Amino acid sequence: MAQRHHDLTDPTAGPVSTGDALAGYLRGQATEFLRALRQHRETGGAVSNGSSGASAGGPASAEVRVDAVRALRRSARRISGSLHTFRPLLEPEWSEGIRPELAWLSGTLALEHAYGARLERLLLALNRLSGAAPVPGQPAGPVGSAGPHADDRTAAHPATPDRGNLTVGAAKAGALLDRQLTLARTRAHSTALQALGSSRFHAVADKVAVLASEVPLTPTAPVTELRPLAKAAEERLADAVTVLPLVTAGSPYNAEALIHGLSPDPAPHPQDAPWHQVRLLLRLHRYACEVVHGRSTPLDVRLLAAGEALDRHRDASEASSAAAQAARTPRIAPATAYALGVLHADQRHEVEAARYAFQRSWQKQTIGAP
Amino acid sequence: MAQRHHDLTDPTAGPVSTGDALAGYLRGQATEFLRALRQHRETGGAVSNGSSGASAGGPASAEVRVDAVRALRRSARRISGSLHTFRPLLEPEWSEGIRPELAWLSGTLALEHAYGARLERLLLALNRLSGAAPVPGQPAGPVGSAGPHADDRTAAHPATPDRGNLTVGAAKAGALLDRQLTLARTRAHSTALQALGSSRFHAVADKVAVLASEVPLTPTAPVTELRPLAKAAEERLADAVTVLPLVTAGSPYNAEALIHGLSPDPAPHPQDAPWHQVRLLLRLHRYACEVVHGRSTPLDVRLLAAGEALDRHRDASEASSAAAQAARTPRIAPATAYALGVLHADQRHEVEAARYAFQRSWQKQTIGAP
Repeated sequence: MAQRHHDLTDPTAGPVSTGDALAGYLRGQATEFLRALRQHRETGGAVSNGSSGASAGGPASAEVRVDAVRALRRSARRISGSLHTFRPLLEPEWSEGIRPELAWLSGTLALEHAYGARLERLLLALNRLSGAAPVPGQPAGPVGSAGPHADDRTAAHPATPDRGNLTVGAAKAGALLDRQLTLARTRAHSTALQALGSSRFHAVADKVAVLASEVPLTPTAPVTELRPLAKAAEERLADAVTVLPLVTAGSPYNAEALIHGLSPDPAPHPQDAPWHQVRLLLRLHRYACEVVHGRSTPLDVRLLAAGEALDRHRDASEASSAAAQAARTPRIAPATAYALGVLHADQRHEVEAARYAFQRSWQKQTIGAP
Repeated sequence: MAQRHHDLTDPTAGPVSTGDALAGYLRGQATEFLRALRQHRETGGAVSNGSSGASAGGPASAEVRVDAVRALRRSARRISGSLHTFRPLLEPEWSEGIRPELAWLSGTLALEHAYGARLERLLLALNRLSGAAPVPGQPAGPVGSAGPHADDRTAAHPATPDRGNLTVGAAKAGALLDRQLTLARTRAHSTALQALGSSRFHAVADKVAVLASEVPLTPTAPVTELRPLAKAAEERLADAVTVLPLVTAGSPYNAEALIHGLSPDPAPHPQDAPWHQVRLLLRLHRYACEVVHGRSTPLDVRLLAAGEALDRHRDASEASSAAAQAARTPRIAPATAYALGVLHADQRHEVEAARYAFQRSWQKQTIGAP
């Protein structure tokens, strides 16, 4: 099976790339990192802002700050990933020193956004699940804003969370999730600000500044061919995919994702781990393609679709855990717990749907390639 | 679209059938009805047994009684359905008199079995949803009988409900459903016994006894062609199918079935009604084929698959309602309500899966037919 995946976006195709191309890529990413950092500092987003969730310079400035943090994470992930894939070409001591620091940074910066996105996903789902049209003969309660027709699907799928459309249990569940995830998000925000003001971060930023001008390659690296290393990254991806239960995933409504739905374990579902692993390896493969082919080469759309499916898988998996976690809050009403149970199962359903979508795009890649 | 469905199992094919064939079919069904009734009486299942759920003659006798009740329902449905489809060939007064009585009878007799099957379906689902393998580092609690491997799917799919495998919430939810559905089943059993001992039932049985020897056809019926009437039944089915959202149903993981998952309405989901209607019309079409082609002609397997998908749709729909209903029990623990929420969503997922299965077999019928 690993053999069949070699005709994915093929990093061995095209003109020869050597360590020089890697150095150029790393310099470019380091420059983007420094630009994003400057942008972030200009918004006053540094440690001075304390633990408050609001930015100093108003909404426009907050948006710039969010973009700057995203750009920081983006470059940090790409630098770290490339150092990993092309390890033999880089001075080991330097390379092994900076990688965990970049991972710490992008992990710390990712949390605030993740909690916000998780809350939005869960509130949208609660709204969708409550999108009940009034039944003929029943008076339209506070919930019945979806119109008189059960087939009025658009009304049942509002684009933004709308609390007015929720039942009591769903509204209480939404309020509980809002409290818990907003608190987590505020904490993550303050942790991120503290991290960006820490001496640990300044040490990372200094190392990245060095990288922007001078990439610490090994003596033979500038003329070393990159493709075998890119190929190895692709093979690690293909091997990890062979571990996935793709036959099951490709069979719609296999009901596997909810198997642990009533498990007593509050931790994320163990069955999700190999999918998360493939998500990370797919990202490394993508970055390796960027290094070898240059950023301007458009990425295979099927590879993008597979990656999006795995992002959705991760988001739904974490959202389902958040719903299960909220249901463990002491002294909640049974109606709240019931809504959280429905919500948890709905997100596990999404997990299963994402696996199906991944299987479909992966199959297309291996079958449809010329 | 209705045009395309005419090449289903075609009631206009084969040798000519007239009212004589209908008379033969009805006599046969009436004879089976009377045989089942005799069998039921021999088990002592009549009203003398009072309201107890147990049969007088022990387990073997109980099994015979269950079979007899099933055979009674089976014949009652076929007689009633044929009287409906071939209405113009039968003496209207007689025919209109017996049909509602047969519907009352098969409806009353169906409930006991339905409650039992619903409980079994829900307990199996709870067990499947709790089939958690112990996570490494966590002691195996009372739940961890599924073995150390998360991939050990067989262990997570036991063939029969196993209470030892459930979490606290799932176990409490199971006990609650058991209490509620067993009570409903016991009541349905006693209602069925009372019905079978009632003068209303004796009047039906007398009419069926007449039917076994002499079918009240209209004067011209014996030489009237049956096929146009069978064809009309098939067209009613095809028309009802065109109302179904088959494009959505054929797209896996469309998440439509759970749209009303948190609806405040305890009644069954209104979106299920057109599917239930198709289920009834498919049954009428099947009986019409039996009349025209004889019982010995094997039924189109794709039509059987479509019918099974709709049975599963009905069962999952009713099971999901039972879980939602149980969650409204006053003073239940949040963990119980949570488990019932997960269970409700799981059964709505089953509803969606059944629609997908129906869409697939229906498409095969209309595309694959010669």
